[in-house]
Amino acid sequence: MRYGVLGTGTVGRVLAGRLVEVGHEVRMGSRTADNEAATAWAAEAGPNASHGTFADAAAFGQTVMNCTAGGVALDALTAAGAENLAGKVLIDVSNPLTFETGRLTLTVCNTDSVGEQIQRAFPEARVVKTLNTMGNEVMVHPEGVPGTHAVFLSGDDAEAKQHVAGMLEGFGWPPESVVDLGGIETARGTEMYLVLWFEIMQARGDRMFNIAIAAPGG
Amino acid sequence: MRYGVLGTGTVGRVLAGRLVEVGHEVRMGSRTADNEAATAWAAEAGPNASHGTFADAAAFGQTVMNCTAGGVALDALTAAGAENLAGKVLIDVSNPLTFETGRLTLTVCNTDSVGEQIQRAFPEARVVKTLNTMGNEVMVHPEGVPGTHAVFLSGDDAEAKQHVAGMLEGFGWPPESVVDLGGIETARGTEMYLVLWFEIMQARGDRMFNIAIAAPGG
Repeated sequence: MRYGVLGTGTVGRVLAGRLVEVGHEVRMGSRTADNEAATAWAAEAGPNASHGTFADAAAFGQTVMNCTAGGVALDALTAAGAENLAGKVLIDVSNPLTFETGRLTLTVCNTDSVGEQIQRAFPEARVVKTLNTMGNEVMVHPEGVPGTHAVFLSGDDAEAKQHVAGMLEGFGWPPESVVDLGGIETARGTEMYLVLWFEIMQARGDRMFNIAIAAPGG
Repeated sequence: MRYGVLGTGTVGRVLAGRLVEVGHEVRMGSRTADNEAATAWAAEAGPNASHGTFADAAAFGQTVMNCTAGGVALDALTAAGAENLAGKVLIDVSNPLTFETGRLTLTVCNTDSVGEQIQRAFPEARVVKTLNTMGNEVMVHPEGVPGTHAVFLSGDDAEAKQHVAGMLEGFGWPPESVVDLGGIETARGTEMYLVLWFEIMQARGDRMFNIAIAAPGG
């Protein structure tokens, strides 16, 4: 399958790299066609990797993944072009984090979420929020954390969520790890959890963890 | 030890009942001295249980536990009286939940928390936020959920957190379950997590679960 990955930060490079590794073709998109990080990534990742603008990447992808920061996601997707997103599964892994106050806060939360903002702005895209509740190390190598730990899905389109669950399985996520929370409005919960994720990370002093759901009978 | 439990809702009754069960003396406080739920609770819970006003309960307790709703916690504690809280461990288990918009939202979050509000309003109390990340069934019977699952502590006073960890151990929480997140400002993370807790609860259709921290090496 062809993926367009928007964003050249660590999360974008790690996810794009893993997609290539498990057999997909990936075009990484950024604001400019000659972005240095995207060029270097594509050169290193081999023949199934390429790079271009946000619009190039979105047009290329049968599935598009937003790996830009939550606060700029709408701008990046607008640059990608609604026509390049229509009808496609649009995976959003972003979180609206800012450290402007000196502490981690969210630029949108409680009564809205980035996932919902994207779905409202691009009603023809099939938005699925996922993978935003963990560090990038765990996203692409869930086997690095023992046991059945959780990856959440939020989205209005059941078939799109099925598709994303398949991609996650390709990364190594067992089906029993996948927790479908419901509609895209449940992105509020996973985005707001980031504050606790950050606190746990600071208390532990490492990022290699994830939450699991413990319950009787499994 | 003597506990003052503020609040006569399910959480207050369940926690007060468990405190009596594990050997403490408990006075349940409410807005009025003759609250029906508190009267019934005290009659049923035996000789170590009593009831009174918020101020009666706080004066009685060597430790005070706020089990009122997050949105009214400051009012209840003001009624309890700063002089009855000074120097004491003040355990806050509340969450600032509202369903006014038809969905669960928080009345304070992101840049503040109920835990912090309480500590600012009652600087001589030793506030510890805990137990607010799960249903009351799990709070008092952690063995109902298998494995090592997490209960968080937030507070500025290390000795107060030690005291609360001891109370949790009395409820059945093994020491390795207790995750000290740091200062009272980390109550933001555990309060904001409630949105995800609620979404997981709705997706599962039951409240008998908790999150565990999965990580290499335990």
